[in-house]
Amino acid sequence: MDRLTIIKVGGKVVEEPESLKALLDQFCRISGNKILVHGGGRAATNIANRLGIQTQMVNGRRITDEAMLEVVTMVYGGLVNKKIVANLQARGCNAIGLTGADLDLIRAVKRPVDEIDFGFVGDVEDVNARDLRVLIEENAVPVIAPLTHDGQGNLLNTNADTIASEIAIELSNYYSVYLFYCFEKKGVLMDPKDENSILYDLDPALFQKYQQDGIISEGMIPKLETGFRAKRNGAKEVLITNSDNISSGRGTRLVFNK
Amino acid sequence: MDRLTIIKVGGKVVEEPESLKALLDQFCRISGNKILVHGGGRAATNIANRLGIQTQMVNGRRITDEAMLEVVTMVYGGLVNKKIVANLQARGCNAIGLTGADLDLIRAVKRPVDEIDFGFVGDVEDVNARDLRVLIEENAVPVIAPLTHDGQGNLLNTNADTIASEIAIELSNYYSVYLFYCFEKKGVLMDPKDENSILYDLDPALFQKYQQDGIISEGMIPKLETGFRAKRNGAKEVLITNSDNISSGRGTRLVFNK
Repeated sequence: MDRLTIIKVGGKVVEEPESLKALLDQFCRISGNKILVHGGGRAATNIANRLGIQTQMVNGRRITDEAMLEVVTMVYGGLVNKKIVANLQARGCNAIGLTGADLDLIRAVKRPVDEIDFGFVGDVEDVNARDLRVLIEENAVPVIAPLTHDGQGNLLNTNADTIASEIAIELSNYYSVYLFYCFEKKGVLMDPKDENSILYDLDPALFQKYQQDGIISEGMIPKLETGFRAKRNGAKEVLITNSDNISSGRGTRLVFNK
Repeated sequence: MDRLTIIKVGGKVVEEPESLKALLDQFCRISGNKILVHGGGRAATNIANRLGIQTQMVNGRRITDEAMLEVVTMVYGGLVNKKIVANLQARGCNAIGLTGADLDLIRAVKRPVDEIDFGFVGDVEDVNARDLRVLIEENAVPVIAPLTHDGQGNLLNTNADTIASEIAIELSNYYSVYLFYCFEKKGVLMDPKDENSILYDLDPALFQKYQQDGIISEGMIPKLETGFRAKRNGAKEVLITNSDNISSGRGTRLVFNK
């Protein structure tokens, strides 16, 4: 099977001009089929602030009422996505910006109200591998914003780590998928203050232990959960790293039965 | 040659829920290949206002400084475009939202500063018919926001009438193109107060005369200029109408040598 590299990159990296430039340079060096999945939470919070719309987070997830849905639709689908696309095109990379609504690529269901009503937040139900493959086979490079739809006309705010993982799983039926979660650090760190304390191999048992010990916490937990889910369901390699290390393949590798 | 219908629809129609719904219903009834090109100026002005950014128009064109470019990128490429896409998908129409940067579909040059500096406004230079055709042949329905790019990483604000016309011209090499400019009226009116005073056939000589007489003025002038340009350069039919009349083909037809 052909290789497909999926890069998930968080808000902080894509929202600062310098780090965005570095990321895009690295991304363009990846040969073969590739997909970029991006966040944009900081920019959304910033624009929401300027519009006088309060941002409310629960467990690291954004409460998305109708006003906030408009903000994330603008910021993720427009501002962040199209800026990346234009900058990739300038580098000769044939990017196409997409949300889950485009070509019906990612269907989701509005998260049921349990204790918390997250509003217009979607849990991924179905990835349309067929149309993604058509684009990839045409040498297009999908750049995917963290928005899905419910098939009934509603856009839904959806976690970018989850989108990257679900795409990786679905496309593992057709490609040898390498999934990279890029963030500011070189990998999962034993000591957050020491950039060199990288955990090179992480298996589910160790993940559980470090979670209990508080070494792994907060935003890293859903990233690792979706990463292990991708690895368990077909992804060939899942790596947590920073964008400088995409080509070297250094960082925290998720493994089973270490 | 296969038929291709290109619908250009202005801001007012797509920004009000009722008229948007009516338009999308009509649009879905069009059989065969189709493209939707949309505006969004009113929504952009509204969001700009709320962000404390002044809107400045010269000859009906928006002055687009860096802050306004961010607004139109968000509003045209995100808010308006993705809302249309999600609503078309809900109707079983396989829409894909695009700007001119995506797949390098529409290259433009930043308008040279003459008497007025329009800022990040682009004049269309090149339409990538190849990739548009790939999408159309895959039965995708392009929904195009009025944004282009310069190939150097900059998005550019570009008139939607012009985009519709330039796409019509380029795709006339491969399809029998029917271009409809949809707005609130049933066509070009002899008397703006009388909805039934439609000019059914309009040729360049009559256009010039009515322009001199002040019967045709303001926003209608560039619409007709780009319409005649499309007709002269390959479009089979160019019609100015409202969205209710897409299927009937009634409205003002642009003709030559009447």
